[in-house]
Amino acid sequence: MAPDERPVSAIGEHALIGRLRDFLSRPPEGEIWSGDDAAVVAAPPGRLVITTDVLVEGVDFTRNTFRPDDLGWKAMAVNVSDISAMGGVAHIAVVTLTLTKDITIVIFDDIARGLLEAGAEWGVSLVGGDISEGSELALSATVVGAASGRVVRRDGARVGDAICVTGSLGGAAGGLLALQRGIDAPDLIARQRRPHPPIAVGPVLADFGVTAMIDVSDGLAVDLGHIVEASGVGCEVDLDAVPVDPGLASLPDLDDRAVAVTGGEDFELLFTTDDVDGVRAALRGLGQITEIGVVTEGPALIGGRELNEWKERGWEHLRDR
Amino acid sequence: MAPDERPVSAIGEHALIGRLRDFLSRPPEGEIWSGDDAAVVAAPPGRLVITTDVLVEGVDFTRNTFRPDDLGWKAMAVNVSDISAMGGVAHIAVVTLTLTKDITIVIFDDIARGLLEAGAEWGVSLVGGDISEGSELALSATVVGAASGRVVRRDGARVGDAICVTGSLGGAAGGLLALQRGIDAPDLIARQRRPHPPIAVGPVLADFGVTAMIDVSDGLAVDLGHIVEASGVGCEVDLDAVPVDPGLASLPDLDDRAVAVTGGEDFELLFTTDDVDGVRAALRGLGQITEIGVVTEGPALIGGRELNEWKERGWEHLRDR
Repeated sequence: MAPDERPVSAIGEHALIGRLRDFLSRPPEGEIWSGDDAAVVAAPPGRLVITTDVLVEGVDFTRNTFRPDDLGWKAMAVNVSDISAMGGVAHIAVVTLTLTKDITIVIFDDIARGLLEAGAEWGVSLVGGDISEGSELALSATVVGAASGRVVRRDGARVGDAICVTGSLGGAAGGLLALQRGIDAPDLIARQRRPHPPIAVGPVLADFGVTAMIDVSDGLAVDLGHIVEASGVGCEVDLDAVPVDPGLASLPDLDDRAVAVTGGEDFELLFTTDDVDGVRAALRGLGQITEIGVVTEGPALIGGRELNEWKERGWEHLRDR
Repeated sequence: MAPDERPVSAIGEHALIGRLRDFLSRPPEGEIWSGDDAAVVAAPPGRLVITTDVLVEGVDFTRNTFRPDDLGWKAMAVNVSDISAMGGVAHIAVVTLTLTKDITIVIFDDIARGLLEAGAEWGVSLVGGDISEGSELALSATVVGAASGRVVRRDGARVGDAICVTGSLGGAAGGLLALQRGIDAPDLIARQRRPHPPIAVGPVLADFGVTAMIDVSDGLAVDLGHIVEASGVGCEVDLDAVPVDPGLASLPDLDDRAVAVTGGEDFELLFTTDDVDGVRAALRGLGQITEIGVVTEGPALIGGRELNEWKERGWEHLRDR
């Protein structure tokens, strides 16, 4: 379709829903996607795994640093990551999009394109949604997946377990800083705008038997905090062992390691296990993991400092600072 | 819990999620609800039926006319109604809640209470959600249900089918008018604030074999328009046959019948069938239906006037008027 620079209010909700429908794939025989009261899809095998996330302009993203297609991509990524962190596989998504009247049709199209690109990347079918209007742009996605085997909770970490993380940390936060400061750091910026959660890794770790797992969305300190609180344990993380995104070296005046501990949105998997070598063997070519510490009886420490001290620098919605 | 008049920003997102979790029922053995990366639930039997809807302050509701618990109730009702209109049965829900920082904790609690009350009413378990902040209050809900038998689309109406509707129309729009004008009309206001879609009726109509079905959310003219457009047919509705909510008689200076044709949010079921008597027999005590017209080759008329003329008075988001 040619870029349409008219505001969405020139065509209205129903035409926009029709436009979104044109982007979608054709449903398989027997399924109903967008265009009716509700979507009807074949149930995936196993238990259902469901999660939802909303991104609000000015809070979760700004139009200065985010392109519309990135917004669509990210709405899908954050949810697919959550499904993977339980050990599940994502299958379908529905979205709600709150548009301001001045949003142009081309921006709408770009958001839809980002959603579809992310869906294609991870095998997730966008099957429907709802469009409303508001005074700020917002996008929520709900993803439904399935777990045919074991699922992993946050509360299973045991004293003596190793604490491990996939990939590297701090890149997404670094990308946001680069965007805000106008620094040309394409790798970091890509991590912020187009996260690639290691979604194939989650189900393998679940089947292997890791004891607790979470995705790093709010920062290592906050998300490790969720595991230790839910499990009723402590931790000791070696600050030097934390895998820092190499791109952070390109940003001046930055404590790389602090960014890696407190920066959110990397969507790496953080987990505990009593068999690190076994995990490595099970993962084979699926990506590297780094052992960063050990589960203790308490207190909860990263580099000798209390988790709570670090957490003050992490991100939480609606919190007075 | 005692009413807590502090703003939500005094405790932040994580404490609010914990607070919401305290409202939820305990999940059955083997399921995981709120408190982890994603919820894990047993798959209901049959195909999945999924829908989502977002309610935005100032557009879909105002705090003048809506109490917080009504907002929670309505977010659930609109989705459960959509599931029923396909012939499905709703099972679980997840929500995203965008809060302004000045919202008090007691308002948050009331929204949660409304969600839970509606869930209890219709057997829908709220299993998780996400909380963000924004400059306006918004609530989206995604409901997942199942259809073990036939589902009903909008596109199956055939020339000669009777057009029927459950219950009566115009009550919810009348309730909004009563609220805006400060008129004491409790029955109408209840229809606006606490809709009770006839959710048990949808699956019975689907199993019986009605040819097309939709819930009346945007008004009879708009929603009948969806059926005739999707089915490639016309219609002729007898204006005098349209079941008008009796409460509308209490509002002065009002064309009751026009409100019944154009007013949205009644969440009654509109359907087409070639066997009205058979439908009545199948429904028995489940509620009454009214035959209001017939499916034709065209054009699409209500009371001799083109649907498009009526639709101009119906509701659509993001449309310049």
